[in-house]
Amino acid sequence: MTAASYAAVDWGTSSFRLWIIGESGKVLAERRSAEGMIAAGKTGFSTVLEAHLAAISAPSHLPVIICGMAGAKQGWAEAGYLDTPAPLAGIVKAAIPVKDDHRDIRILPGLAQRNEAAPDVMRGEETQLLGAMAELGGGSHLVCMPGTHSKWVRITDGTVEGFSTFMTGELFDVIAKHSILSHAVAEGGHFDSTDAAFLEAVAQAAKHPALATNLLFTVRSGQLLHGLSAKAAKAKLSGTMLGLEIAGALAAARPTGDSVSVIVSGGLTELYRDALSALDLNPAIIDADDAVRHGLAAAANAIWPA
Amino acid sequence: MTAASYAAVDWGTSSFRLWIIGESGKVLAERRSAEGMIAAGKTGFSTVLEAHLAAISAPSHLPVIICGMAGAKQGWAEAGYLDTPAPLAGIVKAAIPVKDDHRDIRILPGLAQRNEAAPDVMRGEETQLLGAMAELGGGSHLVCMPGTHSKWVRITDGTVEGFSTFMTGELFDVIAKHSILSHAVAEGGHFDSTDAAFLEAVAQAAKHPALATNLLFTVRSGQLLHGLSAKAAKAKLSGTMLGLEIAGALAAARPTGDSVSVIVSGGLTELYRDALSALDLNPAIIDADDAVRHGLAAAANAIWPA
Repeated sequence: MTAASYAAVDWGTSSFRLWIIGESGKVLAERRSAEGMIAAGKTGFSTVLEAHLAAISAPSHLPVIICGMAGAKQGWAEAGYLDTPAPLAGIVKAAIPVKDDHRDIRILPGLAQRNEAAPDVMRGEETQLLGAMAELGGGSHLVCMPGTHSKWVRITDGTVEGFSTFMTGELFDVIAKHSILSHAVAEGGHFDSTDAAFLEAVAQAAKHPALATNLLFTVRSGQLLHGLSAKAAKAKLSGTMLGLEIAGALAAARPTGDSVSVIVSGGLTELYRDALSALDLNPAIIDADDAVRHGLAAAANAIWPA
Repeated sequence: MTAASYAAVDWGTSSFRLWIIGESGKVLAERRSAEGMIAAGKTGFSTVLEAHLAAISAPSHLPVIICGMAGAKQGWAEAGYLDTPAPLAGIVKAAIPVKDDHRDIRILPGLAQRNEAAPDVMRGEETQLLGAMAELGGGSHLVCMPGTHSKWVRITDGTVEGFSTFMTGELFDVIAKHSILSHAVAEGGHFDSTDAAFLEAVAQAAKHPALATNLLFTVRSGQLLHGLSAKAAKAKLSGTMLGLEIAGALAAARPTGDSVSVIVSGGLTELYRDALSALDLNPAIIDADDAVRHGLAAAANAIWPA
């Protein structure tokens, strides 16, 4: 692995991803694990990182660029926040060095919206946004970043004007696992983003967001009175949470024109694409894995020019 | 206890309450425990009931009238549902007898709203409503019944026209215990219904219900960026859930005039009274413990006339 230029790490709350990037920007190796901030906080961040680098025989002085929760107060080293409005290029200049005996390690900061009525924070998504800029282009954009805590971001010419976090993914999990609805959705298995139960719930919650916790209860009463299946129950729970999020995001920031861009990977891609399409929006999909790697590459190339 | 006429039981999902009622309608004795449907389903319903009756030396042939989850499919004996629109007097006629060697035991049915778009069920609240009719009087009413699953009921001249359940109390618990907000609210302790953090959250969620899960996230970001206290965080979580419920209930059924009646006991009384008042509604408060006892008395007096 003599051609390696740097390692790029996306270090989330509960996930760790590392790529070894070659001189041409080529991905030479990849590692994924569940050693996110919570696990690494116990094991030690340096221990986790070095174990992954050793496993793929990375050069001993290879520099490392990191984004995400490793820069949180409870992370490896606090990387602070850039305040909105925040030009995305600014996160590269604000990267902080980590004290380490092995190598040159930098962590990118997050973004903070220090607004009394709508305080908000992100860590990791700013790097995805930086990496998606080439694909997004100039002008104004409303960008949806689905996940445990979905972010809806307003960007103009590469500057984040403001953003709103919705607890969609986490609330779906917590309600499915710990509420009375757990019985209704337990054997639900996989549902499709084109299932009527999902799309109807999206439409209902988007139209009547105030009724969200009532719509959730109809998952149970629908099962009691109308024999709603576990699969449809799960689809309805998911659709209600997504419809509520989209209604809120659009209330906070109507998209200019009808376009919304979604930066997403994996199973959420179809759910958000089809939910937004059902509401007559026409989402452009940008791959989140590519975006974060491109963002880390932009930072690495600026910090360690060839 | 020779003057005892009957025992009245409010048997909920997680609570059991029993009153011994004398010939004049006087409460002769009371028992409360956590042996609700879930616990009694394991111990045995008859065992739980007889143990409480024995503990207060109730006569061996005293009849028992029961409302609540004891009549659910997973309860003691399935008491079915009356379909809306449902005259409240009808629940007395639809009481079912329980096969029992000891005594005459009847369980009151619940109510079902068999509506494809808004299926809903209640068990126990219908008996509170029956008991509150004297205080409510004739005409049209919008009645709020706070709890784990809050009910908002539309009643006209003693007939339940329709109702909507909101998962407010359960979602508050589940979010406070199992989500990322658990850290923010953990040491919150008791907050007052007049605290600004509570009332502002009620107003914000009622005004912008679509932003509910975003407002919930600001509990965390407010703590990170503005040092929101644990007490204020808990008040804000509670206020957001209540404001969302009230917005939904009013969207589903605007009250005629400005009046809403709330049937409630204990700690939720102040929260709902002050939340509704802050939204310029003027709630009449009816005690829920009295209401359920009066409803059970109406049933007992009809089934076993003196």
